[in-house]
Order: sequence, then C-alpha cells, then structure tokens
Amino acid sequence: MFEMRERAGLGRIGRLETPHGVVETPALMPVVNPSRLTIPPRRLREAFGVEVLMTNAYILHRGDLRERAVEEGIHKLLDFPGPVVTDSGAFQQHVYGRVDVSNEEIVRFQVEIGSDLGTALDVFSEPEDPREACEEAVQTTLVRCREAAGWRGEMGLVGTVQGGLFPDLRQESAQGLSELPVQVHAIGGVVPLMEAYRFRDLVEVIVASRKGLRPDRPVHLFGGGHPLVFGLAVLLGCDLFDSASYAKYAQDGRMITARGTTHVADLRYLACDCPACHGATPRDLREDQQRLAEHNLHASLRELREVREAIHEDRLWEHVEGRCRAHPSLLDALKTLRGHVEFLERFEKATGRHVFYTGPETIWRPVAWRFRRRVLERYRPPKAEGILILPEAARPYSRTYAPVLRRLFRRASAHALVKSVFGPVPVELDGVFPVGQSVVPRELDVEALEASEAFLQAFLRKGHFAFGLLWEGKESLEEIAAKAPGEAPVDMDLARARALADHQFGPRAADALLAGEVTFVKSKRTAKVRNILADGKHALSLRARDGLYTLKLAGGRRLHGAFQAPRLRVVVVEESAPFNREGKNVFAKFVVSADEAIRPWDEVLVVDQEDALLAVGRALMNRDEMLAFGQGVAVKVREGLAAV
Amino acid sequence: MFEMRERAGLGRIGRLETPHGVVETPALMPVVNPSRLTIPPRRLREAFGVEVLMTNAYILHRGDLRERAVEEGIHKLLDFPGPVVTDSGAFQQHVYGRVDVSNEEIVRFQVEIGSDLGTALDVFSEPEDPREACEEAVQTTLVRCREAAGWRGEMGLVGTVQGGLFPDLRQESAQGLSELPVQVHAIGGVVPLMEAYRFRDLVEVIVASRKGLRPDRPVHLFGGGHPLVFGLAVLLGCDLFDSASYAKYAQDGRMITARGTTHVADLRYLACDCPACHGATPRDLREDQQRLAEHNLHASLRELREVREAIHEDRLWEHVEGRCRAHPSLLDALKTLRGHVEFLERFEKATGRHVFYTGPETIWRPVAWRFRRRVLERYRPPKAEGILILPEAARPYSRTYAPVLRRLFRRASAHALVKSVFGPVPVELDGVFPVGQSVVPRELDVEALEASEAFLQAFLRKGHFAFGLLWEGKESLEEIAAKAPGEAPVDMDLARARALADHQFGPRAADALLAGEVTFVKSKRTAKVRNILADGKHALSLRARDGLYTLKLAGGRRLHGAFQAPRLRVVVVEESAPFNREGKNVFAKFVVSADEAIRPWDEVLVVDQEDALLAVGRALMNRDEMLAFGQGVAVKVREGLAAV
Repeated sequence: MFEMRERAGLGRIGRLETPHGVVETPALMPVVNPSRLTIPPRRLREAFGVEVLMTNAYILHRGDLRERAVEEGIHKLLDFPGPVVTDSGAFQQHVYGRVDVSNEEIVRFQVEIGSDLGTALDVFSEPEDPREACEEAVQTTLVRCREAAGWRGEMGLVGTVQGGLFPDLRQESAQGLSELPVQVHAIGGVVPLMEAYRFRDLVEVIVASRKGLRPDRPVHLFGGGHPLVFGLAVLLGCDLFDSASYAKYAQDGRMITARGTTHVADLRYLACDCPACHGATPRDLREDQQRLAEHNLHASLRELREVREAIHEDRLWEHVEGRCRAHPSLLDALKTLRGHVEFLERFEKATGRHVFYTGPETIWRPVAWRFRRRVLERYRPPKAEGILILPEAARPYSRTYAPVLRRLFRRASAHALVKSVFGPVPVELDGVFPVGQSVVPRELDVEALEASEAFLQAFLRKGHFAFGLLWEGKESLEEIAAKAPGEAPVDMDLARARALADHQFGPRAADALLAGEVTFVKSKRTAKVRNILADGKHALSLRARDGLYTLKLAGGRRLHGAFQAPRLRVVVVEESAPFNREGKNVFAKFVVSADEAIRPWDEVLVVDQEDALLAVGRALMNRDEMLAFGQGVAVKVREGLAAV
Repeated sequence: MFEMRERAGLGRIGRLETPHGVVETPALMPVVNPSRLTIPPRRLREAFGVEVLMTNAYILHRGDLRERAVEEGIHKLLDFPGPVVTDSGAFQQHVYGRVDVSNEEIVRFQVEIGSDLGTALDVFSEPEDPREACEEAVQTTLVRCREAAGWRGEMGLVGTVQGGLFPDLRQESAQGLSELPVQVHAIGGVVPLMEAYRFRDLVEVIVASRKGLRPDRPVHLFGGGHPLVFGLAVLLGCDLFDSASYAKYAQDGRMITARGTTHVADLRYLACDCPACHGATPRDLREDQQRLAEHNLHASLRELREVREAIHEDRLWEHVEGRCRAHPSLLDALKTLRGHVEFLERFEKATGRHVFYTGPETIWRPVAWRFRRRVLERYRPPKAEGILILPEAARPYSRTYAPVLRRLFRRASAHALVKSVFGPVPVELDGVFPVGQSVVPRELDVEALEASEAFLQAFLRKGHFAFGLLWEGKESLEEIAAKAPGEAPVDMDLARARALADHQFGPRAADALLAGEVTFVKSKRTAKVRNILADGKHALSLRARDGLYTLKLAGGRRLHGAFQAPRLRVVVVEESAPFNREGKNVFAKFVVSADEAIRPWDEVLVVDQEDALLAVGRALMNRDEMLAFGQGVAVKVREGLAAV
C-alpha cells in the first residue's frame, strides 16, 4: 500500500495506493468544507495538481448534506475523482469540548460515504492535560481503532497517535497502533502546539511517535498545514499534511509563505509569482479572499515540492536548517534534534551529495555524528610516535595543504590529522563522506570551535600517540614536515585503503579485504585509485563521488568469511534466494532478518537462511524497514553469485 | 535625481529619475544583446514589469547595428520606451584582455544613441592584480570620468569605482568620483569575485567603496545579477543590479533561484510557480531555453521584490541572515559584517519592528551593538549596593519574571539586570528597542552565551556596584527578592523615564527633561505610561511600539537649553526657517549642518543658523545624507514653534 522511492533523513518520497488512485508523498491534503467550498475540488485537482483531499466526516454527518453524501458517495458529492480522506471529529472535541457521535456511528458513516481513508474517533489530548488524562486518551483511542478495524470493510483506516506532551505515552500509543491493521498513522493533538509556535514540543512529539511507529506506514501530521513546518516534519518522518489554513487564513486577510504569515494589509510588494499573485498588487489580494486563499494554497504546495526536490537532491538537512531561521522558535526546535541524533542516525543514508555548514547546528547532523563515532571506534592509527594536528582550514578541499599533508604522512613517525568541526580527520580519511564533501566557512562559530576541540580531545584520550603537536600556523607546514623525525616510507594508497575498509565495514575489515597481494588500479586522468584487486580479484571499487567503497563479489566473499553472522548480512527466505543469486534485487517482503547496524545505502551481503552468500549489493533500507515493508526493494543487488 | 523613500541598514527604496522615466530601486536591469534578444524588450516591460534595461554600447559600437542605433536611437532600436543604461566595454577588457575603442569614442557614441545613463570607459582590475596596477586603474578611470563629464550633454553618467581588492584604493576611487558630476556610481571589477563565490571579498569591496561614496547617488553593483547576493548587497547600500545571467545561465541549462543555481537536468520537481514554471515539468524547461531564461528572470525580479518588501517591513537583516545560509561562503561574508559594525551603525535606524535571533551573527547587528554601547556610555545606575544578574530567559517577553523583576527593583539596594545576548539590560530599559522587541531561542549558541558574558563583564568593570549576584535558577526569584536588603521604595516610572531619557538623547538628558514637577499620564487600558508632563507641559510621549520617546516641543525646548550645539541639532538655512517654524518638514537641500551623532529616525531639534529653536521632529537621514541629498525630507517636523 505504501512504498518508499527516495529518502533523506527520516524523510521520504513515497507512493501511497488508495482505492481512488495513487498519491505521491509528502503530500498536502487541502481540507474542504462541502457546504462552503472556497476553491471547488475539481479546480484543486486541475489548476493546483492536488492529488488527495480531506474533509470532515463529523461535520458532514451532522449537516444537511448527510443524506446526499450517503446516496452519492463522497467523491461525487465533492466532484473529486481522486482519493478522499475523512477525519472523525476528534478535532471538534478540541474546539468545542465534546462531540455528539459514537465511534461506531462515525466509522460506519465514513465507510458508507466511500472514504478512501477514514479515521476512528480518537481522543484529543490538550498540551496541558495531565498524565492520567493523556493515558486514558491513548487507551481509549487504541480501543476505538481496534473496533474500527472490524467495521472498516474496504476503507483504509487512519490510527491516530495521542499522548499529549509525554514522550513515553506517545511511543506507547504508537507501538499499540503499529500492531493494529491500520493503513496510515496520524499524529494528533499537535495543532495547539503549532498555533503557539511551540515547535520544540512539536519535535519531541513527532520523534517520540515516530520511535514507536512501524516504518512502513505513512505518517500524517494532523492539522499540520503551514509550510513553515513542512521541511522539519518531513525530515522527522511525516508524509502527509492537511491544510484548512489556506482558506481560514485568507478569511483573516493573512498571507502564507514558507517563512511565516503576513497580514496582506501590511504588504507593499508581492514577492510571489504564483498564478494568484503574478501581476497583482497587495490590494488585489486584500480585496479578493478567494484569490488570497489560492495564493496560500499555491505557497503551501510549492513548499512541499521544494521539500520533495530537497530529498531528491539530498539536501533536506540544508533546507530545514535554512527554513528554521524564519523564527527563533523554529531554531530552538532545530537545536533539539541534537538530543535525538542516535535515533535519527539509524535512518540516515551512508552517503550523500555534500554537507554545507549553515551554523553551529550543522556539526550535530547524524552524518557528522556517525563519522566522529567511527573514527573513535574503528580507526586504527599507524605506528607513529606523535601526531601533528592541523586546523580546520587544512582540510583537503583547500588544495594548498593536501600535498604537505601527504608528505607529512609519509614520515611514519609523525602522523597528521585535521581538527575539523566534523571531528578529527585522519589524513587517510580526508576524502571520505561527509568530510571530503563538506564546505565550511573560513570563520567558525565559537560553538563549532569548542566542539571541534572536544572531539579532538576524545580522540587523543584513546592514547594512540606519545605526543601531539598542534600546528597554529606560525611555522610553515613545510618547515614542520622537514623537522618530523623518521623517514620510513608509508604506502599511502594502502594506508588509505585500510583505513577506509575499517571505517566503512567495521573493525578488522581491512585485514579481511586487503590480505594477500593487493593491486591498485588508478584512473589515468586523475591518478586516483579506482579499483582494488586482492589476490588478482576485483574486491572493491572506490567511488570518486563520496570516497567510499563499492563492494564487489570477491570483496563480499572475504567479508563473509571473516565476519560472523549477522554482521553486514541481509537474510532472505528460500524462495527469494535463486533470484538474488542471479543478480535480482532483494524485495523487502522476502527479508527475514538483517544486521541491526545496516544503514540505508550501506554495502551489504545477501545470504540465505543457512548463511550461504548469494549476492552483494547496496541496502536501500535499515533493518527495521526491511522487516516492516511489504513493498519495495530492500537491497539493490550488484552481483549475484550465479551471475559470475 | 535620486530620492530615498524607505530604508533599512544601508539599503533603501528609492526613486531614480531619468530622461525616459522614473525607476524604483533597488532595481534589476536585464542586460539585452540587441543582436540576440532572448526576451524582446517590450515583453520584458509588459510581462515582467521591467522598468529599466541595460545594453552594451561597446558591442553595439563594433557591430552591424551601429548605424541604426545612431539613426533611430537606442530606445527605438530596442523597442523599449523606458530608461536604457549602457556599459562601455570595461567588462570586455576583463574578458578579452583589451578593447578597441577610446574613452571619447565610446562616451560620445552613448550620447549619440540617446542612452539615459552612459558609462565612461573605466579600467577593470582583476582580483589578483597588484597594487600598482590597481592604483593606475583607479587614476585612469578617474581621468576618463572627468573627461566624460565634459562630453555627456543631457546623458546621465555612470562613474565606476575600481581598486581591486585594496580597500583604501576602493575608498580613494569612490571619494574621487564623488567629487565629479556623475549621476550614478557603479562598483566595478566584482564579477570574478561573485563567480568564484568570494563573497567575503565582495563585502569588503562594497563596504570600502560605500565608505568613499556620497550617499545621495544610487550605487550599481556592476555584473551583480544573481539573486543570491541581492539582499546582502542592498543591505550594504547597492541600489542597481544588472543581469545577463538570466539568459546566459539558460543557455547552459542552469536554473537560478534565490538560494543558488541548479542544473535543470538534475531536477525532478519544480518548486516554482512563476508563469514560466507553473504547470511545467523540469523537462519542459530543459527543452525550452527561452522558458528557462524567463524563469531565471522571474526568480531574479522576485527576489528584488522580496528585498524591497523586507525593507518596507523592516526585516532586511533577518532576510539577509536567512539567505546567507544558502552557502558557507555567504555565511562567511555575513560574519565579516561584524568588523564593519561601526560604519553600518551610522545608517541604521533608531527604531525597528523586531529582532529575530537567527544565529550567533545576530548579536553583532548594528542595533544590538548600539544598545550595548549606550548602556556602557549613557546608563547611570541607581544608588544600589549590589546587582542581581538574571539570565537571558528572564527577559520581559517572558511574562513570568516581569513582576518579580519589578519587585526586586523596588528594593533600592538590590538593582536587577538581565544578562542578555544583546548586552546587559537594566530593568528600567527592558521595553526599549531592540531588547523589548527581540525574540531569542531558549537554547543559545555557545558564541552568544560567551558574548553575553563578555558584555556583562564590561558593564561590571565600570564598578557601579559593591557586589554582583548571579541568579542561576536554584532559588526562586521570590526567595531572592525577600532576602534583598533595604526597603526604600523606588519610583519605577521615574526611574524608567530617566534611564530612557539618557539612553535615547545622551548623558544628562534626564536632568534636563525631567527636572521640576513630573507627571505621568497612563493608558487606562494597559496602565502604562503614555505621556510625560514636565512642569505641566507635555514634554515626551512614550511609544508602545518600540518603548522609545517621541519628543514634544516642551521637551525640545528643555534639551535645546541644556545641550550645547551641535548636539541633537539640524541646522537649516534662513529661507527654510519660517516654514519649519510653522511645522513644515525640513528638506535635505536646506540643511547646512547637523549633529554627527544623529541617526535616521532619531528625535531631533531643528534650529536656524543662530541656533534658535524652530521645531522638533524625526530625522529621516543621518548627517552625511542630509548634507548630500538634493531631494527628499531630512526631518519630518512634528511641532513647529509658530504652530503652538
């Protein structure tokens, strides 16, 4: 029912199948009131490209259109041929304090009118609700979702996570719902947080919910309709948004943009070229509510396209860090992500395009955190006496230093390392993602400098070296290189190859992959290593793009022999094995287990349940996703054993 | 010829008059090649709202269209009825190393074809050029501009600042040009900097040039056509941009946005709703160069409207701080502004809407720097023994602390102050701009915290108090308040009034303004002081919006008596005096001198050349601007002596 196509962070571009067609996510569902259509649904589809609508079943159930909705069905009533999602009345409970409908009535009504996705009557918790009330709301919501599953028929069901501001209750609620046969999860009770710019709390709620939810179902941020939060929410794993705001804000003369809301009356210039704004003046929008609503919807849909494109271009983190400058409360929300880096890292790809430093928050991105941890845990320094520590500015993207670094490294007793904001970078790893692909300002924030120092100290505490020498730019690097003791030549290619093997595949991977006779095949144009042969067999390729290895079958065989299960393994069922052995991709539904340490885009070994090697390839999912998803590719197989 | 209408930082919304009509600035001049019109000029005007065009006189002079250009005139040749600006060939010197035309030939040619603004043949300096070469380029350019002034006839003349990367040469060049009768200044030789993302150097060049230029002429950033730099350049005082990029980039399949450039071939989604993009796919743009050029132009013009709106809404600094997250090189450029804060502050308004903290750079904004300096130089603390220092979180926008702070303050021997990132905030000044209008995240960057500590230490070193007590949140504020010695009641209204008077008008202003019997008139609704009567006369009003005073005539009289000239004065010529005395505004052309310390939006005294008080009002310019501008209002007069 839901398939992941592209990803960045916990964000994903997905395909959600419904009885009335496929929806590409992240998607915005404009909320329409059948009795008061600001923009007719057909026009939403044709002029705005809207794929899915949302409407409120509770309001419909109480209103004049109830009979017609049942007779004609919701699609005909709305004159919208695509999927329609219905809400149950939980939000009206928040607004009016109570609702006059039972769970059974409202669920059966949604089935009757032909909703594509209907919602059980969940119990809304206010942010200030005490723990007991939130606990009860969680339990009642769970019971109602379970009941609803029995009445739903062909209708997809939305199960809503509640739990107020209590992370453990949110997670519990999410776990309970994950066990039920619902198709979409919603995160409820968040509108008051967004209205009060409590984005920090919003982050805590989304993360806690996401921790408890199965990863294979789309997540709807209930009432999340302002483009201000789209990027952040998508980064944390939200796939669906609904917006009544485009019309409501227009009623108040308020204009929505990705950086906030402005009263049209205050505007002098229209910095928007959408069909509603192009050629118009602020006055035109002020005097035409429908036109303003159309702008608001265009701006919201545009930001979602921008978010999708940021996923596609692998720059979602940059996008979110940029957007979070729009308001200090969003900046606060961004800063709280640091506390969740360990969770976020599990979904973070092993590679990427580049890392642009946008502020002190950047050094806490999962890719930077992972790099630092790997240097601490996996890096085995050469047998050098001392270490020369170079400043951030000496990182290899600054071409001046690279040759000097290499010369220093060749003098075996003085190893060199760069004290970067992403952690200490041993010279052997200077081209590896994210370090080799990152761009950092020349002048660094104090916070970044302090963190950089702390990371370095953690590395030095491991006691690899008898002395450390911090180069502060007073002598030239050449002078230092001349002074460094020892002349034993180091094979730089081999040293790099070994360091990377351990860094990418884990401690001792180098011993397995690079044992025996090692041959480096270099690019004629760049003189850089492109392929590595071990005992004459092509074991590894080195990617220019991210400085990481592509694993070939010969390398896979070595790792398979050296590492015990479950390390690096994706285990498939018997019926899948022959296909994978022939080089066909591994589908998630055939995966029975996998190494917990696998991250998306990691190089992996595909094995059968007897641990016989079938293929090598690139994982597109982490373990939890492989085990949860019923659709989609888990491992893109590169070489199967039978294909050789 | 040029008039300033609205302002923020050194940025301004202006009106530039030319023979073919008025141009609103900041403006983008699309560059058109008459032999190869990507978008026809008439369409640029009608569909894009372009007010002014630029074309290259050198290329025209060498090409087939030369005769026609002379016969028909440039406006008919281009079929564009609005102003046309022409370049001279200096950029071709950069591209091809030489040009085959003399200064006289090219200037006379531009006059012949009827350019609205023509350019003397300036000498382009490359960023790597040595000092001597740059010096010569500056001198030659000056000579050529002086010559050109003799040939120009009715044509406006553009004088281009050169000087390579040498700030003193840039400033010298600018000063030399300021003395010539040219109408527009351009900053030349910057294209190589922008192409190489050397934005830090770009900032140094613009600031150095701007320091030397008269403030009443519009400044053109030559070749600055990418929206990435518009906000930053406008903030530093650039008014005109020209873009050949929209068409050139389209030829290479590159798409321009305010956050950079992307190859259309890499795109999957179009996050743009401009007329060229709406409803289109990336493929449509890839296959249609004209369409891509139209997008590029729409995106560039849109960013300029966004910048204008940011000036109008007084949030240009926020806009620029946000945009500078697009690339680490821009962030570096933003950070260098700190080094120019003293220059920037001279143009910064005395008030504003709000300050949103966007990162450690925010604490170095001119308004924050000015607030800190004033607290150090102008604040006279009460005769308290000790001082209680509260954390940033205790700032008054957090309602919890405000009553406790007030209670503390009433116990005279324990004064209270908040250690804010904008500097130490004495409780009496807690509502004053920018502190009372700023929003700061709960979690602060280390850099901001350290700066905040350094500002506090500078304040404490002044030795006002016997002891300082830092509240770290361990006791409740109420407990501390109870412990504080002394019970002498302090008149909070008077204390605030006095502190603000000194802060806004300078040391000892309180003694003058608030001598005698002081009456506070409070708002019935908010119970806040709105008006202050001194000896029964309305001396001051207190603005709710920014917590600053509006000066009334009675207050002006007191300041005039207490402060010697030139303090707070704007001196006007005799012929202006009667009008100002009747309450009419002061026009810049009638100002003969003014207090160097006056900042835009400051409350000032208008006096005649005998120092007789004529009126009080709000300055719209600083002194240099008042003396330079031939058009526009220098002081918005509130009350004239004769009107009372």
